[in-house]
Formats: sequence, structure tokens, C-alpha cells
Amino acid sequence: MRICVINPNTAAAMTDVIAAAARSVAAADTEIVAVTNPMGPESIESHYDEALAVPGVLQVISAMEATAPADGYLLACFGDPGLDAAREVAGAPVIGIAEAAMHVASLLGRSFSVVTTLSRTIGRARDLGTLYGLDARCAGYHACEIPVLELETNPDTLDILTDACREALESDGSDAIVLGCAGMADLAARIGDKIGAPVIDGVAAGTLLLQSMATLNLFTGTASGEFAKPLPKRYTGGLEAFGSA
Amino acid sequence: MRICVINPNTAAAMTDVIAAAARSVAAADTEIVAVTNPMGPESIESHYDEALAVPGVLQVISAMEATAPADGYLLACFGDPGLDAAREVAGAPVIGIAEAAMHVASLLGRSFSVVTTLSRTIGRARDLGTLYGLDARCAGYHACEIPVLELETNPDTLDILTDACREALESDGSDAIVLGCAGMADLAARIGDKIGAPVIDGVAAGTLLLQSMATLNLFTGTASGEFAKPLPKRYTGGLEAFGSA
Amino acid sequence: MRICVINPNTAAAMTDVIAAAARSVAAADTEIVAVTNPMGPESIESHYDEALAVPGVLQVISAMEATAPADGYLLACFGDPGLDAAREVAGAPVIGIAEAAMHVASLLGRSFSVVTTLSRTIGRARDLGTLYGLDARCAGYHACEIPVLELETNPDTLDILTDACREALESDGSDAIVLGCAGMADLAARIGDKIGAPVIDGVAAGTLLLQSMATLNLFTGTASGEFAKPLPKRYTGGLEAFGSA
Amino acid sequence: MRICVINPNTAAAMTDVIAAAARSVAAADTEIVAVTNPMGPESIESHYDEALAVPGVLQVISAMEATAPADGYLLACFGDPGLDAAREVAGAPVIGIAEAAMHVASLLGRSFSVVTTLSRTIGRARDLGTLYGLDARCAGYHACEIPVLELETNPDTLDILTDACREALESDGSDAIVLGCAGMADLAARIGDKIGAPVIDGVAAGTLLLQSMATLNLFTGTASGEFAKPLPKRYTGGLEAFGSA
Amino acid sequence: MRICVINPNTAAAMTDVIAAAARSVAAADTEIVAVTNPMGPESIESHYDEALAVPGVLQVISAMEATAPADGYLLACFGDPGLDAAREVAGAPVIGIAEAAMHVASLLGRSFSVVTTLSRTIGRARDLGTLYGLDARCAGYHACEIPVLELETNPDTLDILTDACREALESDGSDAIVLGCAGMADLAARIGDKIGAPVIDGVAAGTLLLQSMATLNLFTGTASGEFAKPLPKRYTGGLEAFGSA
Amino acid sequence: MRICVINPNTAAAMTDVIAAAARSVAAADTEIVAVTNPMGPESIESHYDEALAVPGVLQVISAMEATAPADGYLLACFGDPGLDAAREVAGAPVIGIAEAAMHVASLLGRSFSVVTTLSRTIGRARDLGTLYGLDARCAGYHACEIPVLELETNPDTLDILTDACREALESDGSDAIVLGCAGMADLAARIGDKIGAPVIDGVAAGTLLLQSMATLNLFTGTASGEFAKPLPKRYTGGLEAFGSA
Repeated sequence: MRICVINPNTAAAMTDVIAAAARSVAAADTEIVAVTNPMGPESIESHYDEALAVPGVLQVISAMEATAPADGYLLACFGDPGLDAAREVAGAPVIGIAEAAMHVASLLGRSFSVVTTLSRTIGRARDLGTLYGLDARCAGYHACEIPVLELETNPDTLDILTDACREALESDGSDAIVLGCAGMADLAARIGDKIGAPVIDGVAAGTLLLQSMATLNLFTGTASGEFAKPLPKRYTGGLEAFGSA
Repeated sequence: MRICVINPNTAAAMTDVIAAAARSVAAADTEIVAVTNPMGPESIESHYDEALAVPGVLQVISAMEATAPADGYLLACFGDPGLDAAREVAGAPVIGIAEAAMHVASLLGRSFSVVTTLSRTIGRARDLGTLYGLDARCAGYHACEIPVLELETNPDTLDILTDACREALESDGSDAIVLGCAGMADLAARIGDKIGAPVIDGVAAGTLLLQSMATLNLFTGTASGEFAKPLPKRYTGGLEAFGSA
Repeated sequence: MRICVINPNTAAAMTDVIAAAARSVAAADTEIVAVTNPMGPESIESHYDEALAVPGVLQVISAMEATAPADGYLLACFGDPGLDAAREVAGAPVIGIAEAAMHVASLLGRSFSVVTTLSRTIGRARDLGTLYGLDARCAGYHACEIPVLELETNPDTLDILTDACREALESDGSDAIVLGCAGMADLAARIGDKIGAPVIDGVAAGTLLLQSMATLNLFTGTASGEFAKPLPKRYTGGLEAFGSA
Repeated sequence: MRICVINPNTAAAMTDVIAAAARSVAAADTEIVAVTNPMGPESIESHYDEALAVPGVLQVISAMEATAPADGYLLACFGDPGLDAAREVAGAPVIGIAEAAMHVASLLGRSFSVVTTLSRTIGRARDLGTLYGLDARCAGYHACEIPVLELETNPDTLDILTDACREALESDGSDAIVLGCAGMADLAARIGDKIGAPVIDGVAAGTLLLQSMATLNLFTGTASGEFAKPLPKRYTGGLEAFGSA
Repeated sequence: MRICVINPNTAAAMTDVIAAAARSVAAADTEIVAVTNPMGPESIESHYDEALAVPGVLQVISAMEATAPADGYLLACFGDPGLDAAREVAGAPVIGIAEAAMHVASLLGRSFSVVTTLSRTIGRARDLGTLYGLDARCAGYHACEIPVLELETNPDTLDILTDACREALESDGSDAIVLGCAGMADLAARIGDKIGAPVIDGVAAGTLLLQSMATLNLFTGTASGEFAKPLPKRYTGGLEAFGSA
Repeated sequence: MRICVINPNTAAAMTDVIAAAARSVAAADTEIVAVTNPMGPESIESHYDEALAVPGVLQVISAMEATAPADGYLLACFGDPGLDAAREVAGAPVIGIAEAAMHVASLLGRSFSVVTTLSRTIGRARDLGTLYGLDARCAGYHACEIPVLELETNPDTLDILTDACREALESDGSDAIVLGCAGMADLAARIGDKIGAPVIDGVAAGTLLLQSMATLNLFTGTASGEFAKPLPKRYTGGLEAFGSA
């Protein structure tokens, strides 16, 4: 089985963190293909960054589908950028890490808290919680105010994030923590040990959800037509390659 | 890894179907321990049956916890009987098959339809959809009107159920089907082939969710106190063994 | 008219408090039959306790139905244990005290606050509020942290509970208080006098709702089939008496 | 105990129907004071009619409060006209019949259907269902298209209404019927007998809810200030008598 | 184009503030006809006041419709008194200022905060937010505790209100402010300058919404029948003039 | 005042339709600058098309902001592509036509129906309805099954669309129609005349909403930080020009 884990950020160092997290939980016979977004922002910290990360994400999926289709695609950014579009082009299930983490967290207690990077990204997380139906399960959204690319370099990341998680748990009266950035993937276990609560990293969770879906032979449904392949169409202005007519 | 799959019905033949479904998807090194509820109704087709299936479910979990704790417990009845109580007594994650199937289905399209046995069980499914936050994702609840224990013996089960699934998909405009009974576990793949849509059996889905959680070292959170171990207490009237004081 | 008030806890002393609360408001020609749960936990303070209180509750109702059917059944525990199952077996309306208190409270102002015993029971109250549709009317859930069986013996119960109610009213900006345990039934009037706000005890409220329903000749509807009598079925493992085939 | 049942319509014949319905269920020592709205529309069949029925309703309550305060006030029109305002001026609980019927109906099954007079009044009923939190419990709103004042004179009212109720039950898959007009109060029992389902008339239900609240010594809460007495104020233009400064 | 701006309060001084706010934004060829409610309370600060302001509001609209129909009607009180009834009698669109302000505010950021006069009016604003579907967009309701008629005379109104808006923005984490009283119409711009956030006055916003609707040739739809003209009917008790039969 | 109307499709003919619709309602002194998306799909009929239309939309806004900032930006595609991102980069309000049309429609009756092009686009419209809080106001989503680019060339477009609107109104029991594609902008008035109900085109509605906001000096709020300018960041892979560092 091959699962393609896409880092929607163009910062390659983040891809290493993400790939390691995916590989650490995947089955022995599951190959993790980690791909860095070839075009767009270094890191995603605004609606603008997120929107502009989508073309690259779609290009990665289309390229794989054309050559060596994966058995599942994971969008490793907590805004789940391009999720619905990706479902149209992929021949296998596609999951976003916010989606993965929120669903898993809702199986582990009454409510969970999201702890993300910058507070300006909370709005997007709220929208996703609403669309996924899990807003009533999310007791609060919190930010540690560390930018995405500093997560790896800031020597205090683990401490700051641990404190934010502990405070979220207390102030929200929640039972679990959802980490709100793929760049935190390597910290979930350590934070969990410190705070004694389940801490969910969407990269690892999403990898296993995809592996499960492939095992179950499940796929994105197209009965309503919404997720059928996009209609052939002329694209212009530098995006010609995205068109198919 | 050991996952305990509990059949809340006392009909042992159903346990075989359930165990086979779980084993067919579990990893090679995952042991499936399938247990038939030792006390209660043969089959669960009412709120009454479901309520009376719970003591046995809890007894099974307590017994395993006391002897050979599993790495996850699956409640293989679509009413998810005793789920919250089970979470209090188990030292590992507990998932119900309705919960498992609904969450997975919501990752496979805009909406899903539930197809269950008798229409009188739809009310419970609705309540679960509401509590899990997935009611907006469920486009409709349908019944094939085959009693639980006839699923195996009725020669037309596959045809009747397939028709019901196809009609649900069309009338609801949905993208996926959730099968509403553990006794349908062996039919998911065949129905899916016939209707060309993803058909989710909660037994297989739940087994893989539990396997994933164990791999992720996740557990039911107890920070809010709700899912902490029950307080020691005197039980009487024939249920003394359930007490701990 | 005969109304059966069931104490789902097996602690008989609580039954006296509950019976007195019911009798203090019932009409002169309404007979209150107070029954202590013959099997299960002394007191209900967890999902586990609540689930295991249900068989006894159903046994009480079935026994009465077989001998001297009541005109209404009240489940005097704030988790409303076994409510849907009870509706299937009873030939008269069944109400839970959480249900009764929340509905009445919503007629007395914009919002109400729930004040219960241990905080770990709040989750169940939330679920009930959601299922009854009254969560938007409930401004907050609070705990006084007095265990159920200490309500009667702790000399400071009235003071502690009164303080908790007053604080709930202020912090929530609500208009009414719902007491979250049948064991508080004797305190509603006194707390109400002290805080100058309506304080609803579900035992008294539920008794009068049932008396009203009997006067109105209303009964649980069975048109959808959900609340029809459970199908005859074989029960095993010590629960044979619950089966009917 | 004295309960004031107000007919917001100015058609006195309706008041007789309403008063009879209230008296038929009230306790022997409960006096029903039935009052016809002294000003406004003969019958209420639009938002306009309803808005203009409110001054008279408030005048009736203020007058009673000034002379012989009742122990409860029932607004016998399914739009619950002036309910919040009435709560500010009354020293005892106030209930609307839509509110009463919807709450009681939600205790009798999974869902209920509303059957009202003209379809143009359904919008208001929907709004009330939303505000009371019971919209998820209401499976459908239906109209029999008989104008309010024809309910008494049309010889086919019982048949037409019975058919509408039966069809509502079937098409909605609901368990109970709520009659959507005070002018139908005398028909509830007969329709219930014919369709074999609980049929709730808000006049009778509301009378018993108010009687219950008075017995419980409950009152509209004023802690949040919203339902405190209106501030003294100058009124002009013919409405001087409504002012208090 | 002529837009009729109705002050539901009978205090004429408020009408001047309201008219000025409307005229300051209306197009050069839009005539603003400002009308003071001819009957009812000086100011609206309770459900009671609001209900009794409605007859005058409807009388104003009916009178204009009979003589010189406007191209739009604005109800300049934050309770949107009589909105649905007004839609039935007016031949042109009718908007309330709460409705106008909340809709516009939801276009200017993730969430908005409402800052109103007395806290007792918050309940009504909540109900409107719920009915308009914008409660999830409203991050909080706040009161400055200045009575309506003191807004103009209190020398500290601007400072107090500005502080309340600033605090609301901070405590709610919202992006915009909705002023909760027509009497604040002249302060929106100045408060906006001080706090650096969009501050929406419903009078100005509603005027432009009505002007837009007239330009678009839009009107209240009557296809469902709910907003058709009220049926002809006899009115009595001093309200004869409101009847049409 | 200058309002920039952006056609997210790259088909220039559609831009003419859109520009004409905007100009037909704008004030005499409002300049409409209509811009065709310079990059991306000819027409938007899938999540994929929509995602890939966003970079061009953002490029248009950034270019205008850098040279001649507009007083408002309208996204003339019913998926409101890139709305949140556009709000971050624009110094003036940004509105999508779905947002504009749904808000205006909710002021014109109890509920509205959406009639769009292909049924596969309904999912996106539902998501927007949910996020804007107006899903309860939307009584139904319908498709006329005419592709976007055929709207202009199909000689039966007006008839087919009119029939679809009429049927939507009847089957949904709604009061107004929202047209679900910018390419239908020129048909709103004609359809409205034929069906006798308000028909809302989001291009015209959105133009007037933006004109109103500019007149009111309102702007996107940045207090919560979510809609502040995107952080400076390095972009790569052909999207360098979108970066700012």
C-alpha cells in the first residue's frame, strides 16, 4: 500500500517532520511517499497562504494519479487546503489532518481543545469544525503564537506548547488535545506524556485513517456527482497545465 | 495487539460474522478476541433490548481488564450500547460501530445514508447521529425491515438490502452507505460492488480505528473527570458483582 | 390516579425523600407509589452506575404493568436512566426528572442553570439537554461536588448548594435553577426562598407533569413503531426473566 | 387557585370552547377565569392580527394584576402572542398554548406534527418551535385550511381535521399530534380516539402546566432582569392607559 | 425613491437623530420620510414597550400605503417590532435595524458584538439573532446601561459607549460592533474612529439596504402565502380602524 | 466611488454579462471596474475549478490595491472563491455573490430556494449556506443542469431556468429565488416577472451592498487579527509574485 503525504507548505524541512510522523505509525508494508508542495508559500499562516498552496497540492495529486496512483492522500496542513477539490481528482480517499484529528479526538472523550500556531488561523479551524459537524465537540481553540517555521527552531517550543495544551485542557474542561499544525507532529507523544491526556497529531492519525480506508476498500463516493472528476476544460494564464481540454 | 470485539447480542452465530469481519481487516499481528455477550437478549431490536444488553457488555470488559486487558474494545451493535459506561471501565479506547461507521462515512463524500434492520431502531440511530455531531452529514435513515436474526437465514437478505441501499442513495442524494447492524458485516463488500458506492460496515471500520488508536498510543481522556473509573460502590439485588465496595 | 415514582438508586433512604417530594405536590386523589430500585448501585454517579440501574428500573415497571398498571412512571434520577426503554414497556407515560425539570425551567425565563452533585455527571446532563432540544436554554452546568449519598448527611448541604445556585445564576445570567439530583428534592423550596429565583426539582415537577398527562388521557405514541412493545425474545445469562419468548 | 385563560381573539364564542377545555381538566379547586380579548381582531390568522391582539392581552393581565391577581395566565392562541411582554407584567407564570403543547408533545414520543388552520400561520409556528428549541422534535407543520372562525361552524371540521392529523402522522413518521389553534380544543379527544395517537390541545395542556407551576410555587425568574416589571414610562396616542408614569 | 423611516418610539427627538442618520447616507434622489410613532411608549426598553409600539408602527405603514406608498420601510428600533406584520401590510420591502445591522456586520469579519442600552433588552436581541440565523456570528451581547432617552442627554454617552464597544471587541475576540439602539445612530462614526473597528448603525445600514432593494426591484415574496395581505376582518375595542371588514 | 467586479472565470464573455448587471444598478457616480480573471478555468463547475480560480482573483485584487485601490471588491462566482483570502489583501470590503444573494433573500420572506447550474455545484452552495448561518433560511438547492458557458448560448436557457425556479418555489414552499451563477445575472428580472416572486442575482445585489458599505465607511474588521494583511513570506515554484518577502 502506498500513501501519499503532502506537505502543502513549500518548506522542505517540515516535510521531513511530517514524513517521520507518518512512517512512525504506518504498517510495515505501507509505503509513505512524502511530497513537498512544489509551488506556493513557505508556510501557511493566513487564508491567503492557504488558498495559494492549493494549486500545488492539486498538481501533486494529479501527477501521482497519472503515474503511480496512491492508495490514499493526506493533506498535512491544519487548514485542510483544497480537500474537496482533491477528492475530485484523486482516485483514492483524501483526508485533511484537521479532519482526521478532530474525528479521532471526538472518540476519546466528551470534548477536545485545539491548540494551534498563530491565533489568526483559528477562524479557519472554526469553519472546519462547523463543516465537519464537530464544533459542539470542540471546547475551545487556542494559539501558542509560535509561527509555523519557528516550531522547529525555537528552543522553547515544547515547553510553550505543553503549557498551552495544559491550560487549554483546564480552561475548557476538555478531555483531549488536537494539535493544530503539521509542524507539531513530532511533539504529540512528548506533550501527551507531560500532560497525561491524549494528544492527537493529525498527520499520524490521518495516515492510519487512510491506511484503514484502503484496507476496507473504501473510496470517495461519486453517486451525487459532486465528487466526480472535474469536467474537461480550458485553463489559461499560466495554469494551462491544470486544464484538460 | 489485542482488540476485543464484543457482540452485545447473545446470539453466538452473529459473533462469528462479526469476528470474521474484524479479522478480515485487522493487521497480521493484531489478535481479535471476539466475545459473545453472556447475558441479555438474543438480538437487539428495541431500546429495551439495548438497555438490557449493557450489563453483559460491561461485565465482559471488566473481566478482560481484570485478567488480560485488551488494547481496544469494539461494541458491535449499531446502538453503541453502554459506550460511555464502557469508557469508564476500560483502560483502552472503546468505540461503537455506529460511531465508527458514521465518522468514516463522513470522510467519503458530502453525506451518507444509514440502512438498518427494523424501522423501530431508527430513533436510536438518530440520537447517536445528533450526539456525535454528524446528523447534518446523514442524509437519511432507512430500514430494510429484516429482523436481526433473519439477516443470516433469509435467502433474500442480500438482494433486499442491496435494493434498500440503492434506493437510499438515490432518494437522499448521498455518496455513501452506512450499514446499521453488525449482522450485516459480511455483506458490505458485496453490496458495495453492486451499487458502486462506498458501503461502510462499522465492525471492520471500528476494528481499524481501534487498531489505529492503539498504534497512536491514544486513550480515553480523563481530564474532565467524566470518564474516570467509576467510584467504588455497593451493588445489590443480583448485581453485586458489578459493585466494587 | 396512581403514579409510580421509581428511585433508580438502591439506597432506600433516598426513596423517602423522593416520595415525600412527590406527595407534597400531588393532588389529594393521586396515589404516589414510591419504589426503590431492587437491583444495582446504591447511588448513581457515573455512566457505569446509570447503565446498571436500568435493569431494575425496567423490572419495576414491568412488574407493575403485570399487576397494577400505574397511570404514569417517574424516573427519579437526573440521568433519566432507561427512559426510552421504559416507554416501550409502560402502558402509561414515562418521564425522567431531568426531562421534567428542564422543560418546566424553560417556561420560567430566558435560560436556566443546572446545579448537580459531582462534576463528572455533567456530561450526561449535557447529552440530555442536547437530545431534548433545550441546550440553548441551559446557560450552564455546575457541580456542588457533594456525592449523592452525602446530600442527606452533610450538615452543610443546604448552604453549599445554595451558594452554588446563587453563583450559577450570577455567572450564567440565567433566570432559574434546575437541581440536578433527585436527592436534592427536599431542598428546592428552601433554596428558592434564599436566592429569590425559581428552583425546580424534577421529582415534584415530573409528578405533576405525569398527573397532568393522565388527566389529559395522553400516552406515549406508537405510530412510528419506535415505542411499540419490545418484540418477544429469548433472554439468557441470568436475565431470563426480562425476556418474553 | 385561579387560572386566567385569555382568548386573544375577540370572538366570544371561541372563549366558550377554550374555557370548557380548560375547565374539563382543571382540579376541582382550581377556578378558571376565561376572558375574551376586549380589543383587536375577531380571529388571528396573520402576523398582523397577532400583533394587534397583544395590547388587549396585556390589558387583561394588567387589569387582573391590579384587582385580583391570578395564579397563572394562559395565552390561548397558537402564536403565543405577547408571551414575553406578559411575563414582565404578570406576577405569576404565563404560558402560551403553542409552548405548552410542544413541550408536552415532546414527552410523548420521538417527534410530533403540528396541524393548524391556514397554511399562512405555519411560519409563526416554525419561529416558535425554533425559539423553544423544539424544532428538531417537530417532524412537520401542516394546515387543514379551515379558517379559525369556521372551525365551529363547518360541519366537516372534525373529519377534515382528523384526516389531516392522520396524514401528518404518516407522512412525518411522527408519534403525536399538536393541534395548532385554540379553536380546536374541543376536538382533541375525539381525533385522538379516531387516529389512535396522542393529540395535544394546548389549552388543556397549558392549564395543567400552570396549575402545576402554582402548586410548585414557581414563578417567572427575574434574576437576569429581562422579565422584571417594565420601567415606568409615558405612553401617548390613545395608549396612555398602558403607561405608568 | 422614497424610504419611510419609522421611529417606533414616540419620543420625537429620537426621530431627528434617526432621520439625520438615514439622510446622511441616502442617495441624492432618495427622499427620507421620517415618521414618529403616533401611539405607544416614549422609549422601548422592555418586551412590553415593544409589543405596544407595534400598533402605531402598523398604522403608519397602512396610512402611507393608502396615500403615498413608500419604496421601503425601515423599523428603527433594535427589537425590530412588528417586522413580520409590517411585511404583510406593506407593498414594499420592510427591514428592521437589528436585521440590517446583523446582516451587514456578518460581511465584515468572522464575528461581531452587539452593544445595546439596558441589559434587559439583550434577550430580545438574542431571539432575533437566532431567528435570523446569525447567532453563531454574534460573539457576544453587551449593555452600556444607559436608558434610551438618556443617550442624547448624558454628557458621557460617547465615552461610556466607546468603552463598552472596545471591551466587547476584546472580550469577544470579534471584528465588528453592532450598535443596539436607533438612538445611537449619530455615534457610529465617532466610535468607529476611536476603536479602529467597523461600527454598524442599523439605521444607516437599513436605509441603504432598502434603497438597494428598491433599485433591484425586489419585494417581499408572497408565494408561500405567509406574507400575503392580512385577511379582511372585524376589529373591535378601540382598534376598529385596524380592521378591514 | 469605484467598485471592482471580478469574474473568477476566465471566459471574457461572462464578464460582459456581469459588468452590465453591476452597472445597471450602480449609482451614477459609482464606477464599475469589471475584470476577467487572468488565470485559471474558463468556467467554474467543480471544487477543482473553483480552487484554481482563486490565485487569479487574488492577483487582480493585489494589483488594484497596489495601483488604484477600489472601494469594494465583488467576487462574481457563486462559490465565493477566495473570499476570506481576498479580505486579507483588500483594503476595502469584499463580498461574494452567494453571500450577497443569500443575505438579501433572507430579508424578503421566510425562506428562499437556490437554483444553480449543474447539480454537482450544490455541495459548495450548501457549505456556504452553513457557514453564513443561512441554511435554515434556504428551503432547497436545485440545478437546471445547464453548464455555465451554455447559459448564454442555449436558446432555451430562460425557459428552462424559469421552470426550475417556479418548481423550486412550489416544492420548497419558499418565497424567493436566489440564482446560483453569475452567468444568470441578466435573467433575474425576466424570471421574476414570469414567476411573480423576487429573484435575486448576487451580482447586482453584491454591487449595491458594496456601494452601501463604502457609503457607510465600513471596512473588514481586523481586531481579531484573522483578516490582517498576510505575513510577508517567500513563495516559490512559479508563484513567486504572490510572496512578499
